[in-house]
Amino acid sequence: MEDLLIRNGLLLGASTGAQRADIVVDKGRIVSVGAVGTMGAFRREMDASNHAVMPGFVNCHGHAAMTLLRGIGDDLPLHQWLEEEMWPREDRLDGEAVYWGTMLAIAEMLKSGTTTFTDMYFFMDDVARAVEETGIRAVLSRGMIGTSEEEGSSRMEDSEEFVRRWHGAAGGRISVMLGPHAPYTCSETYLSRVANLSARLAVPVQTHISETEHEVETMLARHGKTPVEIVRDSGLMDRPLIAAHCVDLRQGDIEILAEKEVTVAHNPGSNLKLGSGIAPIPGLLEKGVVVGLGTDGAASNNNLDMMEEMRLAALIHKGANRQPTLLPAETVFSMATEAGGRALFLDDVGRLEPGCRADIVLMCLNRPHLTPANNILSHMVYAAQPSDVDTVIVDGRVLVEGGRLVELDEEKIMAEAERCARQISGDNNGG
Amino acid sequence: MEDLLIRNGLLLGASTGAQRADIVVDKGRIVSVGAVGTMGAFRREMDASNHAVMPGFVNCHGHAAMTLLRGIGDDLPLHQWLEEEMWPREDRLDGEAVYWGTMLAIAEMLKSGTTTFTDMYFFMDDVARAVEETGIRAVLSRGMIGTSEEEGSSRMEDSEEFVRRWHGAAGGRISVMLGPHAPYTCSETYLSRVANLSARLAVPVQTHISETEHEVETMLARHGKTPVEIVRDSGLMDRPLIAAHCVDLRQGDIEILAEKEVTVAHNPGSNLKLGSGIAPIPGLLEKGVVVGLGTDGAASNNNLDMMEEMRLAALIHKGANRQPTLLPAETVFSMATEAGGRALFLDDVGRLEPGCRADIVLMCLNRPHLTPANNILSHMVYAAQPSDVDTVIVDGRVLVEGGRLVELDEEKIMAEAERCARQISGDNNGG
Repeated sequence: MEDLLIRNGLLLGASTGAQRADIVVDKGRIVSVGAVGTMGAFRREMDASNHAVMPGFVNCHGHAAMTLLRGIGDDLPLHQWLEEEMWPREDRLDGEAVYWGTMLAIAEMLKSGTTTFTDMYFFMDDVARAVEETGIRAVLSRGMIGTSEEEGSSRMEDSEEFVRRWHGAAGGRISVMLGPHAPYTCSETYLSRVANLSARLAVPVQTHISETEHEVETMLARHGKTPVEIVRDSGLMDRPLIAAHCVDLRQGDIEILAEKEVTVAHNPGSNLKLGSGIAPIPGLLEKGVVVGLGTDGAASNNNLDMMEEMRLAALIHKGANRQPTLLPAETVFSMATEAGGRALFLDDVGRLEPGCRADIVLMCLNRPHLTPANNILSHMVYAAQPSDVDTVIVDGRVLVEGGRLVELDEEKIMAEAERCARQISGDNNGG
Repeated sequence: MEDLLIRNGLLLGASTGAQRADIVVDKGRIVSVGAVGTMGAFRREMDASNHAVMPGFVNCHGHAAMTLLRGIGDDLPLHQWLEEEMWPREDRLDGEAVYWGTMLAIAEMLKSGTTTFTDMYFFMDDVARAVEETGIRAVLSRGMIGTSEEEGSSRMEDSEEFVRRWHGAAGGRISVMLGPHAPYTCSETYLSRVANLSARLAVPVQTHISETEHEVETMLARHGKTPVEIVRDSGLMDRPLIAAHCVDLRQGDIEILAEKEVTVAHNPGSNLKLGSGIAPIPGLLEKGVVVGLGTDGAASNNNLDMMEEMRLAALIHKGANRQPTLLPAETVFSMATEAGGRALFLDDVGRLEPGCRADIVLMCLNRPHLTPANNILSHMVYAAQPSDVDTVIVDGRVLVEGGRLVELDEEKIMAEAERCARQISGDNNGG
């Protein structure tokens, strides 16, 4: 007897389009896709004949606990936002605040169809605990800043311990990467040490590259090299590496990323909101770079809605380049699912195929804004809303049903997050 | 006894921020805002202490029945989209299809908090009938194309009749404007005749101006003038005029729009999706031009969600100009409400003030993506979703409650719209 049959859904895939099929899930994985008919016995059956069935979204970049800072310091210049609004509050974070901020992020992400998220932050044991408890899938990194020898070494030790404790934990739902912050906060020497550690521990690496013009100009002035060149020269690109942002790429940078098979996390909402700019995604795709989508932290977004990131990715490159044929719906749908899995080096995530992890979302279609049914895949990219999410399954386990969190106490999560937010804002009503 | 008390909501206003207050509604208008306490007697009371209370959204530009074409011909070059996908289907439209397409649009708009919409299309009696029946507020125009003398005169007569039949109808919920399509489909002489008719009938005018580079280059080549200059020279700007798009403005155009007090409907979603570009909204605002927001038709958006338009407006100008201080949340919130009302020359719409029309939306706040409550107005612009809409009131009448349409048969509307969509696609399963 197998675990679950999802019957007669309209399966959506970036390359396969929309087709009616059944899905059989067992032991956390998809075991077959196609016409099952009346054969077999299943612990549970779902009728998906009124639903689109799609891979859960893969959020390739973020800082989950920054939900606590949602709406703080909007519309300010970047440095004022960071120095006056973000850093003083982040300085007051503790493990408990990070735990509840992450729980809040997970609640929001699950309800909007995200089944895998990526995190680079602090107090990562508390983040991993939240992932373990909630049932979501995550790729986690301890953020590493290596401006001084002592600090850098301490972060290396923390990260190594974090890898040993959590990589492959929670039945394989947690993967760990090393997370050197960026070439402007880590020296090239330090990045080389991180590359060596990554090889020794056999884990991939995530970092931020070329998020702003200011960063690139600073690196050029200081080192005569772009951030991309610095990271390449450190040897980090000889490891599996996902680079967040890549907004201000200069002559030759795209070719380096393509040649080194670096993957990219495109975060259109955050890049726009912080005034960083618009990443040259059409150029990256043209050279074959694997690009996933990310929300970045909620403080610069201000939500964790992957449908909104799909829509932004599908719209802004057309508009900025005055070319309506750029980033068609299928490409963007893949960025949020299949290409997202590849960008995170998770080869069994992001697709509805036998052998893949059973990370599956059922979307309601019977909605005015999804009517008429002219093109369901297009509707998912250009018209759908988080509240269209009906059922969310991660690793074969049903975490959202009828749009509601099945196992989590949403009211408690919101109350605790609110309390922690007051506390880190130094508000007396809080802690 | 007055009609309605909305008690203790968190009132949001672009200039007033967030403040707790009661609202009293009588005979379709707001009669007082402030602390009512236990005074008075009301036919109905609503407890809004867990809600944000805001003016309903004012959608300043669209073609409602194009919902039937949602998802048709995405990601194509503009002319191929128009000529191969849109026009053959629009040619098959009849009054019934426009009626059901408009009903579908109204269902979607009401559920996402829009209380006033703007329409320029065909079969406008059927559109007006849908507005009358549903209770929403609308500004309607018969689209006028004046390439031949005969066609132009016929449209003038249609429009005059439409004004006489419907302007001020449905208890004042329907206003009519004249709707000359654009300077590339109407000669300057024809636009002058429309200006005279507008003065004679005492109604404002809406048109499309400078949507694409192609349009502007064509007008410059043909007439040696930009579309803005052509419209000015026609005399149409001496009438109250709202211009949709204004994407490709050239040297001097902004000054003309500002001097003539032309208002602008900014449609960021549609402009991006069609590859038209990004309108110079920061420049228009700097010169004091009143700018509202619009969705345009669902065929080029592909939804009618004003929260998404707010988010796009708040994000794309920051990103395209690399300036995170542009179009702050308050400005964009006003564009979707108060400035939207002004852009449509409706002086009692878009604000929660005594004397204004009682077009009011209650938003749920108790949601993960709106937590913590750091800045509620920012949350409405940067994080909210249509499904956060709890209650929608138009002209004092409750049309949405608990997120559901109170008076409309949503299932029937979707089924009829689906049928009409099949019919105009020439699909045998339909009509």
